[in-house]
Amino acid sequence: TPTFRIALIAGDGIGKEVMPEGLRVVQAAAERFGFELDCRTIDWASCDYHAQHGQMMPDDWKEQLQGVDALYFGAVGWPATVPDHVSLWGSLLKFRREFDQYINLRPVRLFEGVPCPLAGRRPGDIDYVVVRENTEGEYTSLGGVMYEGTEREIVIQESVFSRHGTDRVLRYACELANSRARKHLTVATKSNGIAISMPWWDGRADAIGRDYPEVTVDKQHIDILSARFVLQPTRFDVVVASNLFGDILSDLGPATTGTIGLAPSANLNPERRFPSLFEPVHGSAPDIYGQNIANPIAMIWSGALMLDFLTQGQGAGRAAHDAILGAIEAVLRDGPRTRDLGGTASTTELGMAIAERV
Amino acid sequence: TPTFRIALIAGDGIGKEVMPEGLRVVQAAAERFGFELDCRTIDWASCDYHAQHGQMMPDDWKEQLQGVDALYFGAVGWPATVPDHVSLWGSLLKFRREFDQYINLRPVRLFEGVPCPLAGRRPGDIDYVVVRENTEGEYTSLGGVMYEGTEREIVIQESVFSRHGTDRVLRYACELANSRARKHLTVATKSNGIAISMPWWDGRADAIGRDYPEVTVDKQHIDILSARFVLQPTRFDVVVASNLFGDILSDLGPATTGTIGLAPSANLNPERRFPSLFEPVHGSAPDIYGQNIANPIAMIWSGALMLDFLTQGQGAGRAAHDAILGAIEAVLRDGPRTRDLGGTASTTELGMAIAERV
Ligand SMILES: CC(C)[C@H](C(=O)O)[C@@H](O)C(=O)O
Ligand SMILES: CC(C)[C@H](C(=O)O)[C@@H](O)C(=O)O
Repeated sequence: TPTFRIALIAGDGIGKEVMPEGLRVVQAAAERFGFELDCRTIDWASCDYHAQHGQMMPDDWKEQLQGVDALYFGAVGWPATVPDHVSLWGSLLKFRREFDQYINLRPVRLFEGVPCPLAGRRPGDIDYVVVRENTEGEYTSLGGVMYEGTEREIVIQESVFSRHGTDRVLRYACELANSRARKHLTVATKSNGIAISMPWWDGRADAIGRDYPEVTVDKQHIDILSARFVLQPTRFDVVVASNLFGDILSDLGPATTGTIGLAPSANLNPERRFPSLFEPVHGSAPDIYGQNIANPIAMIWSGALMLDFLTQGQGAGRAAHDAILGAIEAVLRDGPRTRDLGGTASTTELGMAIAERV
Repeated sequence: TPTFRIALIAGDGIGKEVMPEGLRVVQAAAERFGFELDCRTIDWASCDYHAQHGQMMPDDWKEQLQGVDALYFGAVGWPATVPDHVSLWGSLLKFRREFDQYINLRPVRLFEGVPCPLAGRRPGDIDYVVVRENTEGEYTSLGGVMYEGTEREIVIQESVFSRHGTDRVLRYACELANSRARKHLTVATKSNGIAISMPWWDGRADAIGRDYPEVTVDKQHIDILSARFVLQPTRFDVVVASNLFGDILSDLGPATTGTIGLAPSANLNPERRFPSLFEPVHGSAPDIYGQNIANPIAMIWSGALMLDFLTQGQGAGRAAHDAILGAIEAVLRDGPRTRDLGGTASTTELGMAIAERV
């Protein structure tokens, strides 16, 4: 049996509650489809760990993760004790960068049984995937403050785009669009306002797009693109965006499907030189932690993406992914439901219901 | 009679079609409420002008606008002949900067008679105002390209935030929130990802907010904030944001009210050292230009904001503003309607219907 080594990082808050359910379901799928998950629990990359050690991870975190195929990740952040930028730059964002997980894949889909906040939209109307650049762009700590603490204070913040980093995400998105029925790619930009990086980004989109004559490439400014996620969601198939724009679109998209509590994400190093990371889009939600009421579906769906990626090219992973997705669909349609979707089921009950169906 | 000097800049595309209707309505309001508009038509700041002169505006544009109280502006952009970043940086963005119009005020409101894309939302549920910083932040042409044209290409894009520029927009937003019934202010941020400017921005929001103990200040990251515009629109009252975030939110907000075709904006220099500029949020829409079908309401509403600003402190301007808003409400409820709202009325018919009611 093919075996995959998984590091389980629950992190903070509801990350700790949804992790066991995610694991329950991926284990069930592994059993059914004949592969093995060799799992190891890791307590770092959490604010608890920070409380004890004054940092988010041990110095040798990279060595400790050697040989691991994937990180299955809950959520990080506990602002009451560690400021968000410290906890995030010390764990999640570090993984994304140092493991070169340059693709952040975020499917957006409206399910039967989930009330849609958009009037008159039905399952099938909203079904696209956001491909977010995940290692550079607007997320940097480059820049600084001049005349600090005075009235004349000036702050410079730098964004960095490399051709290497830009071309590969554009190419990934083109390949993905090319593999889908509609072959439609939306490129998020803001070249009319952000005058250096974005016109250049447009140029790279043109250059890469030329290699995919069958893909329709549609560039849209982020302002009107956000509006169209609400007004014309059916027009989207694959959407590629910079780090920041992808962050915004991949919260906004799920919101139009009823809740960001369902949205999964795959942080991929497609070349498999480093482990990839799979996590819900939602955060650690301190406000609902401790009650076992969090919806574990985003975690479970992220697990499905993990199995699919790990076994790519082998039928079993795709089948496991589809079985989990099918179980999620069935539970969303028929219940049980967690509180966020109007039910009373606990996190655990939901995980068990989905695992059973798998 | 108080007289105000207005420069009329129709610009490109449907800007030319909605301008006459805006003017028709503000003239009607001026007549009724007893003040005079001394209007001057300007053909520059358009791509037509660019075609003849190779630039968007004459060199002495500032001198030519001396003594003008306000610019009433249609839309700029004709990408078939002039790239957007050229036309916009050569006109609209230049006005915003060189006339120090540092507040971009964008009301968002759901009207009776306009089908809402959000399920179950009624007029009154969506009623807030976006206060956008309008002169600095992410919109710059600072930075550059290294190893240009090679595989190693690296692009740096700089954002610039000054304390001067940040404090004044935060203060304006606090004052506005303080003057409203709910006294609620949402501050858009992304301090967990954009590691220099945004944590600093948060600090300024804390500092300025302290001067307004009655205002509730709620900081939200732009990703979840965008999601909440869709999921929980009732929670917003005043929303303050950087240039880029304000741009996104002020297209997204209007989208949730059914169309960005209604959204107005006021680019203000509150100290009146320079003329302010009033324009629809929508662009020049080359695809529908020439058919006289564009919805002129955003232009007309922008005119109402102009009258209100020009006569601030005098009752007549507020009354004129309210009369125009009332007329817009009535027409949206009872018709006629332009094609974007399911009717068959022309741009002109709509303008006439609103002017009559004023
Ligand atoms: C046209 C563009 C440069 C402009 C902006 O981004 O400011 C527009 O979208 C707006 O919102 O006024
Ligand atoms: C927590 C935050 C830094 C992170 C991001 O902005 O990337 C999150 O919003 C996400 O989308 O994964």
